Amino acid sequence: MPTQSWTIIDADKNHFDADFAAHGSLRPGMPDGWSIKHRVLRGGKSDGVSLIELNNGRMTLAVLPTRGMGIWRAWMDGKELGWRSPVRGPVHPRYVPLFDPSGLGWLEGFDELVVRCGLASNGAPDCDEQGHLRYPLHGRIANLPATRVEAAVDEEAATITLRGVVEETRFLFHALRLSAAVTTSFNSTSFTLDDQVQNVGGKAAAIQMLYHINIGQPLLDPGSHLVAPIAKVAPRDKHAAEGMGSWRTIAAPMANYEEQVYFAELTGDDDGNTQVLLKNSAGNAGAQVRCSKQTLPYFVLWKNTVALPDGYVVGLEPATNFPNPHAVEARHRRVVNLPAGQSWRNTLHLDWLTSTDEVRTAEQQINALEGNTQPDIFDHPLPDW
Amino acid sequence: MPTQSWTIIDADKNHFDADFAAHGSLRPGMPDGWSIKHRVLRGGKSDGVSLIELNNGRMTLAVLPTRGMGIWRAWMDGKELGWRSPVRGPVHPRYVPLFDPSGLGWLEGFDELVVRCGLASNGAPDCDEQGHLRYPLHGRIANLPATRVEAAVDEEAATITLRGVVEETRFLFHALRLSAAVTTSFNSTSFTLDDQVQNVGGKAAAIQMLYHINIGQPLLDPGSHLVAPIAKVAPRDKHAAEGMGSWRTIAAPMANYEEQVYFAELTGDDDGNTQVLLKNSAGNAGAQVRCSKQTLPYFVLWKNTVALPDGYVVGLEPATNFPNPHAVEARHRRVVNLPAGQSWRNTLHLDWLTSTDEVRTAEQQINALEGNTQPDIFDHPLPDW
Amino acid sequence: MPTQSWTIIDADKNHFDADFAAHGSLRPGMPDGWSIKHRVLRGGKSDGVSLIELNNGRMTLAVLPTRGMGIWRAWMDGKELGWRSPVRGPVHPRYVPLFDPSGLGWLEGFDELVVRCGLASNGAPDCDEQGHLRYPLHGRIANLPATRVEAAVDEEAATITLRGVVEETRFLFHALRLSAAVTTSFNSTSFTLDDQVQNVGGKAAAIQMLYHINIGQPLLDPGSHLVAPIAKVAPRDKHAAEGMGSWRTIAAPMANYEEQVYFAELTGDDDGNTQVLLKNSAGNAGAQVRCSKQTLPYFVLWKNTVALPDGYVVGLEPATNFPNPHAVEARHRRVVNLPAGQSWRNTLHLDWLTSTDEVRTAEQQINALEGNTQPDIFDHPLPDW
Repeated sequence: MPTQSWTIIDADKNHFDADFAAHGSLRPGMPDGWSIKHRVLRGGKSDGVSLIELNNGRMTLAVLPTRGMGIWRAWMDGKELGWRSPVRGPVHPRYVPLFDPSGLGWLEGFDELVVRCGLASNGAPDCDEQGHLRYPLHGRIANLPATRVEAAVDEEAATITLRGVVEETRFLFHALRLSAAVTTSFNSTSFTLDDQVQNVGGKAAAIQMLYHINIGQPLLDPGSHLVAPIAKVAPRDKHAAEGMGSWRTIAAPMANYEEQVYFAELTGDDDGNTQVLLKNSAGNAGAQVRCSKQTLPYFVLWKNTVALPDGYVVGLEPATNFPNPHAVEARHRRVVNLPAGQSWRNTLHLDWLTSTDEVRTAEQQINALEGNTQPDIFDHPLPDW
Repeated sequence: MPTQSWTIIDADKNHFDADFAAHGSLRPGMPDGWSIKHRVLRGGKSDGVSLIELNNGRMTLAVLPTRGMGIWRAWMDGKELGWRSPVRGPVHPRYVPLFDPSGLGWLEGFDELVVRCGLASNGAPDCDEQGHLRYPLHGRIANLPATRVEAAVDEEAATITLRGVVEETRFLFHALRLSAAVTTSFNSTSFTLDDQVQNVGGKAAAIQMLYHINIGQPLLDPGSHLVAPIAKVAPRDKHAAEGMGSWRTIAAPMANYEEQVYFAELTGDDDGNTQVLLKNSAGNAGAQVRCSKQTLPYFVLWKNTVALPDGYVVGLEPATNFPNPHAVEARHRRVVNLPAGQSWRNTLHLDWLTSTDEVRTAEQQINALEGNTQPDIFDHPLPDW
Repeated sequence: MPTQSWTIIDADKNHFDADFAAHGSLRPGMPDGWSIKHRVLRGGKSDGVSLIELNNGRMTLAVLPTRGMGIWRAWMDGKELGWRSPVRGPVHPRYVPLFDPSGLGWLEGFDELVVRCGLASNGAPDCDEQGHLRYPLHGRIANLPATRVEAAVDEEAATITLRGVVEETRFLFHALRLSAAVTTSFNSTSFTLDDQVQNVGGKAAAIQMLYHINIGQPLLDPGSHLVAPIAKVAPRDKHAAEGMGSWRTIAAPMANYEEQVYFAELTGDDDGNTQVLLKNSAGNAGAQVRCSKQTLPYFVLWKNTVALPDGYVVGLEPATNFPNPHAVEARHRRVVNLPAGQSWRNTLHLDWLTSTDEVRTAEQQINALEGNTQPDIFDHPLPDW
């Protein structure tokens, strides 16, 4: 039997397997060492959160069906990939005041390694003409629960996959469906997100997506560095412009540091494939993101190297657009227009590099992508960005 | 024993029978075929929703204690009464951002056959002088949970009843209590809502109520028609005015159709009893609403014949007022003023007609109600409505 | 074994003992008569609320981990301390629309004997320059769940203690942690709140705290009287000024009474210790609050003697500041500034007096505190308050 699959949650059928568990020794002849485990958290702001752990034999991913299929954290060899937000989650959406009139309530649920921002919008809060919040910060999808979750093990491909369906629907406005899959190979230190956003409504819709990939300690340290095939880069605002001279380099934790954000376009290969690397100061560990400029044409670096208790973190954020208010991005045609029934599809890989060799190889690949391109480096914000 | 009753939920006594079930074969001599069943949904946005199915032997009603005792759907002979909202509910109130500053968050939980709109307000969002939302769209009651739910079977009357108490209270503002009963006779295709809204506070309060009864496929089809004893009708706005020529007739699903709404007063018999019918194009099926002008003096037709995936639906909406912002209705004295301790009571019947004969009989009754009245048909919005 | 302790909730360890119970007959030799019991409420707006009852042998306290460790009610000798809010709680935070754009949603969850108001703010709603709500009424802490709850019995000290940790954190803004302990001696009619608010973030933060202690029937009756060592008092506004002549005396329930609020500073002993008493008209029962001016320099009397169904109640409110909008208090330097890692600590006692003797003794103590001080009594609101 090459593939085995299980339905863990199916709201339409009122199916919810709160204690689902599967592992390699289930059946003779199956590869061993992996496991998939579902539990529902209790207590505090996590009360009621579904958390599914995928263990590929080497690395464990914690996936959050209750929070839009985000990836909470990853663990390997006693190390953790992720960051320490002052928000101690995972936080159930009921405790996230998303529609706080300031539009900033999303910040009360933010502590994941990978958070999707979208689907109707993914950027800063946007207000309508009356001044009423229309789109809250970073959108809704990370605070919506999956209606269906399935796990699968493909013995031939030697992979574990978790698929979830999350709907972001407002009657009269939009009906969007995210089908999110995370796949990891047995014993690998990588995982892949295969996402599809479908306009399941009967009229055209505009969508946005941003992958907010957040790296903190232990990987992140002073002197960590962004390696990326830059075609064009500019600071988001005046404050970021002040740090332009060292925009690729990560500073030590500093109290009252104010976030600095850089907007970029990357170079890619002939098919648009590109990759970025955040390597540590020693150059023997890194987090690499691989994706395609065809679906994610923009890249954002978010430096938030505040004091440790405030969440020392850097975000690697490939996106369909820049995280400005929705109206700004719409004016600059940086939204994805989906006719009724149509889908946007995207594949993104996250590699957890754990040796000097792996880091060097990644740097060489990125250098090759950059080739002879002379990057356009702006030291002031760009009016169109 | 003529009547048997059960308490399913009683929050005051911390009683919650998550798996309550009763049915006719419980006891020798009891009429058989009926059943009452409670379950708590799991997964997605429905997680935690109480749903109680009343089966009268022929028709099954799904009632939602968690959503203000709304009627989610009805089924009979393999058919369904209701509609297919793009919102796939029933949605737990915790996932409905009712206080989204735009006041439109209610739309994210809307997929029922019968939704009550009220109690402090029932119409469009209303803002205060600072521009802050005061009354969100369609009010609170459909997103508040019942504190007490009882089921009863009356063998003499041959009926099943489900009663629920839902409180809409804001300290310093108002303390309102809805006691909602739904009753259906054994093997009938009708049900009755007996509602009481009590001002349980110590000072006067104003209430509003609107029954948002929503019909979609299969009953609704192109050529479906509203049969109603019209005394006076006008379009809500210019856009509805454009469709005034065919305001009673239902169009085919059409992408990007923008809702058209008609405000009306009906004629009634000497006691104020009146009825309206939405019949299908073949004239062999219909949904009929019977109620009283004394308690529900206004009637609204909501045409939302959008593409199927967006929710092809028509609403029959008898109400205490028009669903304009609360301040508008208050200015026109279309609110129900309740002194401390006083109640508003209302009875409303919904008949699911399933044959040409039944449809014809209903039409004759409605024609008789209309009598020789010359309806006032306005092709422009009325300033006072 | 002098002290025995139990962890009831620990979200970090996914520990949640829904049916925790301990009592004196657990172990031979232990003092008997006390008990600690946890249960999770079901149904209505209370669904999912954790309630822990501490019974010291004479008095029982109901503590609400789900609502920021508030004290819901107390019972003794068949009597109840608390009040009858029209809000029938305890209400789960998910049903409290805290970010209702008006900022008044907190009122939908308000029915406790002791509610903490804080931590980032504790007063009236405050808006930013765009008119968007920034701080909702009375702050967040009463609608945030405890992440950790422990019970302890100290046999030597003859006390029962319940400790809870509640975090109020918004990424980029603040990271505050309330460690709240309630302690009561075996067979006593008093309890003590030992609170610590720590700035667990990496940068300075400002906090506010107000103890909203609410007394209704049967203790509160017409002619009830506030006994307090007043240094200075003024009405909050013109409406309160009208009642200044009898500001210490409690009126009979009256429909449409509009709340009257008085701001005060108290005298204290050399260490700043002070106390206030609300005694009933017969002078044979009272609620006394003892605290320190060093941590709670201000005192507010909230008279809300409305009709019984609207919540006939008086609030005794020692606080770090007056419950004006946060910006007003910040301007007058009535916020507590906490450097990173620092804490504000406070101890407050509530004594339930049950005899003429106890009431007289308390009055004598308060008179002694007042000494020869000539209180500054203002009959108009003070611009700086």
